[in-house]
Amino acid sequence: MDFDAKLDAALARLHEEGRYRTFIDIERKQGQYPHAIWTTPEGTQKDITVWCGNDYLGMGQHPVVLDAMHEAINATGAGSGGTRNISGTTVYHKRLEAELADLHAKEDALLFTSAYIANDATLSTLPRLFPGLIIYSDALNHASMIEGIRRNGGEKRIFKHNDLDDLRRVMAADDPAAPKLIAFESVYSMDGDFAPIKEICDIADEFGALTYLDEVHAVGMYGPRGGGIAERDGLMGRIDIINGTLAKAFGVMGGYIAASAKMCDAVRSYAPGFIFTTSIPPAVAAGAAASVAHLKVDQDLRDQHQTQAKILKTRLRGLGLPIIDHGSHIVPLIVGNPVHTQKLSDMLLQDHGMYVQPINFPTVPRGTERLRFTPSPVHGPKEMDALVKALDALWSHCALNRAELAG
Amino acid sequence: MDFDAKLDAALARLHEEGRYRTFIDIERKQGQYPHAIWTTPEGTQKDITVWCGNDYLGMGQHPVVLDAMHEAINATGAGSGGTRNISGTTVYHKRLEAELADLHAKEDALLFTSAYIANDATLSTLPRLFPGLIIYSDALNHASMIEGIRRNGGEKRIFKHNDLDDLRRVMAADDPAAPKLIAFESVYSMDGDFAPIKEICDIADEFGALTYLDEVHAVGMYGPRGGGIAERDGLMGRIDIINGTLAKAFGVMGGYIAASAKMCDAVRSYAPGFIFTTSIPPAVAAGAAASVAHLKVDQDLRDQHQTQAKILKTRLRGLGLPIIDHGSHIVPLIVGNPVHTQKLSDMLLQDHGMYVQPINFPTVPRGTERLRFTPSPVHGPKEMDALVKALDALWSHCALNRAELAG
Repeated sequence: MDFDAKLDAALARLHEEGRYRTFIDIERKQGQYPHAIWTTPEGTQKDITVWCGNDYLGMGQHPVVLDAMHEAINATGAGSGGTRNISGTTVYHKRLEAELADLHAKEDALLFTSAYIANDATLSTLPRLFPGLIIYSDALNHASMIEGIRRNGGEKRIFKHNDLDDLRRVMAADDPAAPKLIAFESVYSMDGDFAPIKEICDIADEFGALTYLDEVHAVGMYGPRGGGIAERDGLMGRIDIINGTLAKAFGVMGGYIAASAKMCDAVRSYAPGFIFTTSIPPAVAAGAAASVAHLKVDQDLRDQHQTQAKILKTRLRGLGLPIIDHGSHIVPLIVGNPVHTQKLSDMLLQDHGMYVQPINFPTVPRGTERLRFTPSPVHGPKEMDALVKALDALWSHCALNRAELAG
Repeated sequence: MDFDAKLDAALARLHEEGRYRTFIDIERKQGQYPHAIWTTPEGTQKDITVWCGNDYLGMGQHPVVLDAMHEAINATGAGSGGTRNISGTTVYHKRLEAELADLHAKEDALLFTSAYIANDATLSTLPRLFPGLIIYSDALNHASMIEGIRRNGGEKRIFKHNDLDDLRRVMAADDPAAPKLIAFESVYSMDGDFAPIKEICDIADEFGALTYLDEVHAVGMYGPRGGGIAERDGLMGRIDIINGTLAKAFGVMGGYIAASAKMCDAVRSYAPGFIFTTSIPPAVAAGAAASVAHLKVDQDLRDQHQTQAKILKTRLRGLGLPIIDHGSHIVPLIVGNPVHTQKLSDMLLQDHGMYVQPINFPTVPRGTERLRFTPSPVHGPKEMDALVKALDALWSHCALNRAELAG
């Protein structure tokens, strides 16, 4: 067996399809976000502006977060030293879980090393808790939800993205007595569109189904206390399990679910992905807790965030650039061709010092390849202006279409 | 569908079987390991000594680690801000991967958020890279390896723990042309026994199989530079993929694989558990890199660690207590009954201020329930003496067996 040849073939496929990923090596400068240093493959360093990060509010450099991390390191050290069950539960983990349960008005919350593993571990464990469970999954759900749903070979049905009729149709086709769960997201990160949460909850009620909502691209940013879209729309009480991340708007790392005390206790007790892994470092938990607490009261930051997104969308639209606008904080600019998208990204980085990663198939459908901008409160008018001018010039330079708006 | 009743039933099963886990809430005092503060369920705080942590060398409080973390937070902030592909690759991640590749004398290394997800993501991706792959898995492999092997429904064969004849037997029964991989651990954490790595590599050669070695309970602690058992025994070059953790002896968080550049590139490119998750915080990567670098030259710490384990085993054996001794750093003390094990753990914590978690089924076979001690260089003679005396007294108090040694 020539294993090397198989690896060559697997990698060649990616190169041929233009899907081979090259990581850009950057270091953000704390206190000067969105500015960062790019270390080129040749080893030289250049100043750049990051336009594609998921630290949506710049909390990764907020003093309350950094102070909490420094303090925890001084008080208790680097790592937790164990799984949650074997010496790895600390006051920092308990405090963060309490903060998150409060954020979502749930009885309890459960921390994971990432929102990826929170989705994967929870969704793969639920069929063990509810034998015969059928999971109804939005067609555009994140990879981590798909992996969790597929993992133990439980029953699953895919419904068309945000399509209530299709959801009702597939649910009606199943045994009314079977336990059911609807899994979906509040903000889909590639288009920045919202789910019809209320209507999905209505359908869940109709069929006696549980609801599982991934709010990773919403927590911290929406709702009067940063509880996400479900909080904004007064629907948190209708969601059985909320999934969130501490690595995007909260600026640190880790993921969680918030749910009833019994649900958290059962997932805590049965999910291998929770049980058999070292808990997050106390300093990470401390930083995240400080961030969550801060964003419960900093509505200004949320308002600035939305304003920045609106300004960028208005200006790009004014130039006739084909953005997608569903009213969220995410600004996708459709290029529609993987080669052009990569080229634009390269020119922005090399010629203009602006970093935005190309998004290609399979993350988005072919023909909708895009640049995905995430303007934030730390992007000032000067950075915004420079980006808009650069895009305008590049669009002309590459003779790209301006007439047809993407959405 | 009464979901609450199903949760009640799932939780009741654990209570009935004596397997319901209650997390002990502790905070280690940096600079004073193994001392920590226990917050009781009633909210009072007590000083305790931790005897069951996986921060085997106390690196979680080492100044080189803490300084590196503080510096990275000051330089670049809290979180990485993205997945590795979308703004989440930094000089800290690259430096750590280079440090790890060097540690294992491999071309490259690949970071994951945990060794759990490193095992799960890699082992579930290999069958995609090598269609028809059959994975031969030691019966006592860690949950994360089992989850990864099972995930995509690939072919797997379980061989009896450390049993070379059984391994050869199951391999010989399969198609000689099928791609094969042997997955095993170097140190099994519950008994502290070692795998016959050389002999397993010989069998792999015989059948043209890849070798996958989990060294999470060995890296940092064994080998002249902390490369693990394979380094100690001069066998690193015969292992295709080494899995390790940054959360145990290295004292921080995160996991990795080290392998050929092509292998790392392919896993990097195809594993959803790597691609779709926020990278570890730069400060975590910085702390881990400092720890790995330090342990490449601090043989004294490794020697002290082994000495501590030997002293504890000698003293417990001298009292006739049934320890398992395979010559590793892990000291399992067999109680043989889940109720007694829990009771001993409770008494040690409440009456003696010593924290060691009971290990019950299914983590270990029924009838071998145990206390698992992890003496380290930070446990001084005073702490050791107090533990031995407490165990001696409790053993008499509970009239437990001294005659029969466990192994």
